[in-house]
Amino acid sequence: MAEASSRPTPPQVLDADTLRNMDRYWRACNYLSAGMIYLRDNPLLREPLKPEHIKNRLLGHWGSDPGQSFLLVHLNRLIRKLDLNVIYVAGPGHGAPATLAHCYLEGHYSEIYPDRSEDEAGMQRFFRQFSFPGGIGSHCTPETPGSIHEGGELGYSLSHGYGAAFDNPDLIVTVMIGDGEAETGPLATSWHSNKFLNPVRDGAVLPVLHLNGYKIANPTILARIPREELEALLTGYGHKPYFVEGDDPAVMHQQMAATLEQCIGEIRAIQQHARANNDATRPRWPMIVLRSPKGWTGPKEVDGHKVEGSWRAHQVPVLDPVTNGKSLKLVENWMRSYEPESLFDEAGRLVEELRELAPKGARRISANPHANGGLLCKTLDMPAFGDYAVAVKKPGGTYTSPTEVLGKFLCDVMRRNMTNFRVFGPDETASNKLTAIYEASEKTWLAQTEPSDADGGDLAVDGRVMEMLSEHTLEGWFEGYVLTGRHGLFATYEAFVHVIDSMFNQHAKWLEKAKRDLGWRQPVPSINLLITSLVWRQDHNGFTHQDPGFLDVVTNKSPDVVRIYLPPDANCLLSVADHCLRSRDYVNVIVADKQPHLQYLDMDAAVIHCTKGIGIWDWASTDQGVEPDVVIASAGDIATMEALAAVQILKERFADLKIRFVNVVDLFRLMPEHAHPHGLSNRDFDSLFTATKPVIFNFHSYASLVHKLTYNRTNHDNLHVHGYHEKGNINTPLELAIINQVDRFSLAIDVIDRVPKLRGVGDHAKEWLRGQVIEHLAYAHAEGIDREEIRNWTWKG
Amino acid sequence: MAEASSRPTPPQVLDADTLRNMDRYWRACNYLSAGMIYLRDNPLLREPLKPEHIKNRLLGHWGSDPGQSFLLVHLNRLIRKLDLNVIYVAGPGHGAPATLAHCYLEGHYSEIYPDRSEDEAGMQRFFRQFSFPGGIGSHCTPETPGSIHEGGELGYSLSHGYGAAFDNPDLIVTVMIGDGEAETGPLATSWHSNKFLNPVRDGAVLPVLHLNGYKIANPTILARIPREELEALLTGYGHKPYFVEGDDPAVMHQQMAATLEQCIGEIRAIQQHARANNDATRPRWPMIVLRSPKGWTGPKEVDGHKVEGSWRAHQVPVLDPVTNGKSLKLVENWMRSYEPESLFDEAGRLVEELRELAPKGARRISANPHANGGLLCKTLDMPAFGDYAVAVKKPGGTYTSPTEVLGKFLCDVMRRNMTNFRVFGPDETASNKLTAIYEASEKTWLAQTEPSDADGGDLAVDGRVMEMLSEHTLEGWFEGYVLTGRHGLFATYEAFVHVIDSMFNQHAKWLEKAKRDLGWRQPVPSINLLITSLVWRQDHNGFTHQDPGFLDVVTNKSPDVVRIYLPPDANCLLSVADHCLRSRDYVNVIVADKQPHLQYLDMDAAVIHCTKGIGIWDWASTDQGVEPDVVIASAGDIATMEALAAVQILKERFADLKIRFVNVVDLFRLMPEHAHPHGLSNRDFDSLFTATKPVIFNFHSYASLVHKLTYNRTNHDNLHVHGYHEKGNINTPLELAIINQVDRFSLAIDVIDRVPKLRGVGDHAKEWLRGQVIEHLAYAHAEGIDREEIRNWTWKG
Repeated sequence: MAEASSRPTPPQVLDADTLRNMDRYWRACNYLSAGMIYLRDNPLLREPLKPEHIKNRLLGHWGSDPGQSFLLVHLNRLIRKLDLNVIYVAGPGHGAPATLAHCYLEGHYSEIYPDRSEDEAGMQRFFRQFSFPGGIGSHCTPETPGSIHEGGELGYSLSHGYGAAFDNPDLIVTVMIGDGEAETGPLATSWHSNKFLNPVRDGAVLPVLHLNGYKIANPTILARIPREELEALLTGYGHKPYFVEGDDPAVMHQQMAATLEQCIGEIRAIQQHARANNDATRPRWPMIVLRSPKGWTGPKEVDGHKVEGSWRAHQVPVLDPVTNGKSLKLVENWMRSYEPESLFDEAGRLVEELRELAPKGARRISANPHANGGLLCKTLDMPAFGDYAVAVKKPGGTYTSPTEVLGKFLCDVMRRNMTNFRVFGPDETASNKLTAIYEASEKTWLAQTEPSDADGGDLAVDGRVMEMLSEHTLEGWFEGYVLTGRHGLFATYEAFVHVIDSMFNQHAKWLEKAKRDLGWRQPVPSINLLITSLVWRQDHNGFTHQDPGFLDVVTNKSPDVVRIYLPPDANCLLSVADHCLRSRDYVNVIVADKQPHLQYLDMDAAVIHCTKGIGIWDWASTDQGVEPDVVIASAGDIATMEALAAVQILKERFADLKIRFVNVVDLFRLMPEHAHPHGLSNRDFDSLFTATKPVIFNFHSYASLVHKLTYNRTNHDNLHVHGYHEKGNINTPLELAIINQVDRFSLAIDVIDRVPKLRGVGDHAKEWLRGQVIEHLAYAHAEGIDREEIRNWTWKG
Repeated sequence: MAEASSRPTPPQVLDADTLRNMDRYWRACNYLSAGMIYLRDNPLLREPLKPEHIKNRLLGHWGSDPGQSFLLVHLNRLIRKLDLNVIYVAGPGHGAPATLAHCYLEGHYSEIYPDRSEDEAGMQRFFRQFSFPGGIGSHCTPETPGSIHEGGELGYSLSHGYGAAFDNPDLIVTVMIGDGEAETGPLATSWHSNKFLNPVRDGAVLPVLHLNGYKIANPTILARIPREELEALLTGYGHKPYFVEGDDPAVMHQQMAATLEQCIGEIRAIQQHARANNDATRPRWPMIVLRSPKGWTGPKEVDGHKVEGSWRAHQVPVLDPVTNGKSLKLVENWMRSYEPESLFDEAGRLVEELRELAPKGARRISANPHANGGLLCKTLDMPAFGDYAVAVKKPGGTYTSPTEVLGKFLCDVMRRNMTNFRVFGPDETASNKLTAIYEASEKTWLAQTEPSDADGGDLAVDGRVMEMLSEHTLEGWFEGYVLTGRHGLFATYEAFVHVIDSMFNQHAKWLEKAKRDLGWRQPVPSINLLITSLVWRQDHNGFTHQDPGFLDVVTNKSPDVVRIYLPPDANCLLSVADHCLRSRDYVNVIVADKQPHLQYLDMDAAVIHCTKGIGIWDWASTDQGVEPDVVIASAGDIATMEALAAVQILKERFADLKIRFVNVVDLFRLMPEHAHPHGLSNRDFDSLFTATKPVIFNFHSYASLVHKLTYNRTNHDNLHVHGYHEKGNINTPLELAIINQVDRFSLAIDVIDRVPKLRGVGDHAKEWLRGQVIEHLAYAHAEGIDREEIRNWTWKG
């Protein structure tokens, strides 16, 4: 048995009684974990186990349960002893039985789900529901009290943990990291989160790396490198690792008790020093490596194969107890080895002396309000967004960077909410022109600094702008932050928001489940994603940075939880951002460019337009009071500018052409009302887009997305969408627009082609337009001038 | 100036002449790098610099160029001295000028692009094209000879490097990793790739961590942790780090020369030992930490702000030389500091004594054929896939796991191609039922093993099945492997293929550019993604594992490079897999479940069906020779089974109902022929789907994707698609199908509702169908039985 490396053999910190009872509590957890996987009846094994007591289909993950429960039992001891405020993040969320068992033993499960009561009948229902149709999943799903991390997808436990700890100085977030999860990229870099945690202001994160040894079918890397290599790695990540290793429960209990107490002691000492001296020097935070056998205390061997301490313990250790008497006996002996008759009373409730080992009330890990963050959520103190309005005397007369305007608003949101609002971004807050935020707060940085950093660097230990070159870590922090009831905004490059596609999917699924089915989960602030540095302005970075397809991923998720906004100008962006920051339980995606753009709507008009989400712009239309010849529509800032320029070209050439101009801010307005709560009725849709006239729709992203949303609209056959079609290089903006045919000239040509009354009479104009295309391309290639060509344009009306 | 930590002060390995010339070569690179960013004319500064010589828009990244060039100069010395076979992966791909400069100086750029010749006029064109409309991008794009890694998105340099090194025993892949990139998750875990590199069989990877100090606007984490922490981290990753640190070129040249020689020497010693003794014990591979100032040798200060050694050197260090005389002078002085007149001859070519420093022919890093992998690509030796066929006497009579059958085929593909074929998967090859592959080759594993691993573990130092719990690393390896001309297949869980969405996007973009515009790049083997463990069989894992949306991401990419196949059974899967493995320059996505499925087509029929990609299944249709009343269509194995079950129900109840059954294997057949090379003409589409009859389409993924592909088809208004709509839990398969309405009963109800002749007469059947739904749900919830309910069904015909 190895010992903790950084200190001598642990003292016997637990007296015999405590040790015995903690071990019993642990055995109760393990009993319940096995019961969840196996039993549909006879939950307390009060009669001999028979096939009909066993579930017909055995599902669940046993492997990591005993190790997780072991840690939880020891956390409970210290919570009580030291009155700690602790939540637990189960990286191996697949091992939900451990978390569920604790929640049940603490009585909280029965408080929330009264039919799963603390008695034999309740325990039966508790077992049966697990991984059972109509019941609950086998991960730490939203249904699991005390969970903010499902763990269905691996990689985000540690970043979620840090997100929860930020601005919660009193909280200790214990994060168990599976050694399988530790192989993922997102987890591997999230260790560096400790350079962003301020011991004065933030809570603590205690990582517990669980060297369980195996994944589904393979050993894990970290369990199979020499001890000195692992220690070097964790030290290199900035931690002080303590090792708890072995398989003898009695020895391990003493080790873990001493080690955990040591770690909590160090955490408190770090915090006390930091807070007493206002010294946020990055400390070397403690962490634990728990090396215990996979499926610890389970069957040692099944059919001649090693199970405990092997990958075979990952899921269901004994597969055929219903049909194989020997296996049935094996399960029974295993479960009886925990001595359930000594753990649960006559009624089936945990015996009194063990119940006393659990913390009380909100100190229970399962009932800690931080893990139901809506309970603690304070409404943001919002400045009046109208105060940041850009003056717009006439539409399309001036240029402003929308994100620059937003930055000023966010600066004041930050100033008013200096304990529960943060902004996230991968090294690009400045590049994305949100620089004004730094006036309210610097960038968080607890790594080393150099004198020259001060020159525009804006680094501070108490900064509230979170920048690290890892979208995964940022999104993980942000999710942990909102799930514990705080607010924020994440600004990121459009092409690389795809890095977090899967994280978005998982968070949307979490929200959907929580919102739809779980009344006890209070609404949490929304994830607000500001997508910027857009596809159409990549003269700098070229083809790799051109991917507006995140919206397709978003539209696949439940309409209950996703929103997409494409504000066409700065005032609309302000209105949308205000709405999103106030909202709860959504993922709001806002698409807005950082480059200077034409401004169209004054603030009053912007508010009305954004509230409707879609509308006719009369000032850009020529169809007053009558059915138009054509509808020109747009969604997105660049798309809107080009569409308006096309209108202007057409107006100048065809005085009697009746154009209706429609702009879409809220993309889901395009969907049918039965498919999305923001969807327009067919009547309203038709009244905007007509039932028969050609519609030329200029779209920010891939054209097919608009078709996907509108395919069953009355006038869909006449809907012609222009969008990005994966053509690009380091083109000038206009050139890029032209090769994807979202430019003013291509749009105007399309209108001429589609409007019957322009047939023939439009030929001359078409020729001129084609000439314009050629001329602009030639000019760009000759001179290398880029955006002036577009910026010099204004709307003449 | 710090010294290399792991050895004494470097000896003066370079004599004065060599040092002087290497430094001159380096200065030539730096001169060219600056020239690319600034100059459109006067490339050799043969006249005083004037505003009109400067580009109108200044784009590009200077910051990492000098450090990259520095390394490349030193690599060249050793390539020549030791006749090394080296390729270079530029993690900071944004610093393309460094790579481009070397390629130009080696003469290879002019060989490929003759107008960018080695003379003054050629140099002017070489400068001007850079980040210039109509020219080349500012990353190591496919246009860059010697590049297999664009570096537009950060995170994949090291995994790409390892992919290139596998099975190339003679190759040394030098990977420069930016300290910004090092913060990303994918990079952070890819260090562990060294546990999968076999010194006997594989080449070497030499990581060079470039502590450039800054990202766009922030310091980097790894540059701001104490030296001992960084050393611990890299040691923990399994490396032996050498440090080259400083800013005095003369000292740094000696340091780098000695250190690089030391590292190459260690690599050779490791390989010689391993190969002489057939001892693949994991060595501690050397690596280098190069700490040099960002923008080294560039302007020290601009307008009172520090530039060299600051984030301000990241892109263009002097912003306004066109309009500001002082800035113009600054640029001129900076560029003249490299003494171009001493570096280039009268004609404008690098002087002879410097040209001699570059390697020759294919030893040039820019011309190494491994970086144009198609040149070296050997066609796979393929077994006859028909030999693995499942016997199908009648359609829908037997069950087989499609991936299990595929596994046997892949086993023999592997056996015949033991040096250029690998299979990748995140710990799930067995779970995905591809276990037969292990008969040909074990899982690669060079970390520690334990005796019990042998029990089904199948680990071996010379295994060819790559399993690590990081989809990022696997995809990175695979991309590096195919870009250097080898073949493979990556099997992964459907929901979590989203983890690599962004990697897929980037690889597709690379392929598209290479294929469309670059005749000199030879076609490389396709990326074959087998998507399995599908949405419809997640009774085990529940909602988090239900996401079939990767197909939406794929359909956004260029039709030139993406393919999607949904083989309905095992024989079709074999046919599709054979086709994909033989193909070049695609990303092929194959969707196939691992669970047992009904088999429909014998091998002859499967080949015909897959070749057509879409077709009528006569045996399942009742419309022989006449226009049907309804078309029932399907794509995907589970969707097909349910659709056929619906046909059977309808046939039994409505003897005179004329049903046509259409199955889609090749999803892009649905697109118009003008939009995708596989697209069907409208005539062919209409002849399958009719122009007027209701079409009930049961789809594997989100229904809207089918609408996105078919919205402009003649009969689209009558197309009713059933698919996943984000409803799920740990349901039984049939229950999950029912709540998403892709089940047999819901489909049959929809047919009754849509076919005019069934109106009224179908009411009784509808009532029965609704009863079936209720009964099945109740049964599942009561008994917890899951898939038997479906598996017991067979097609009666």
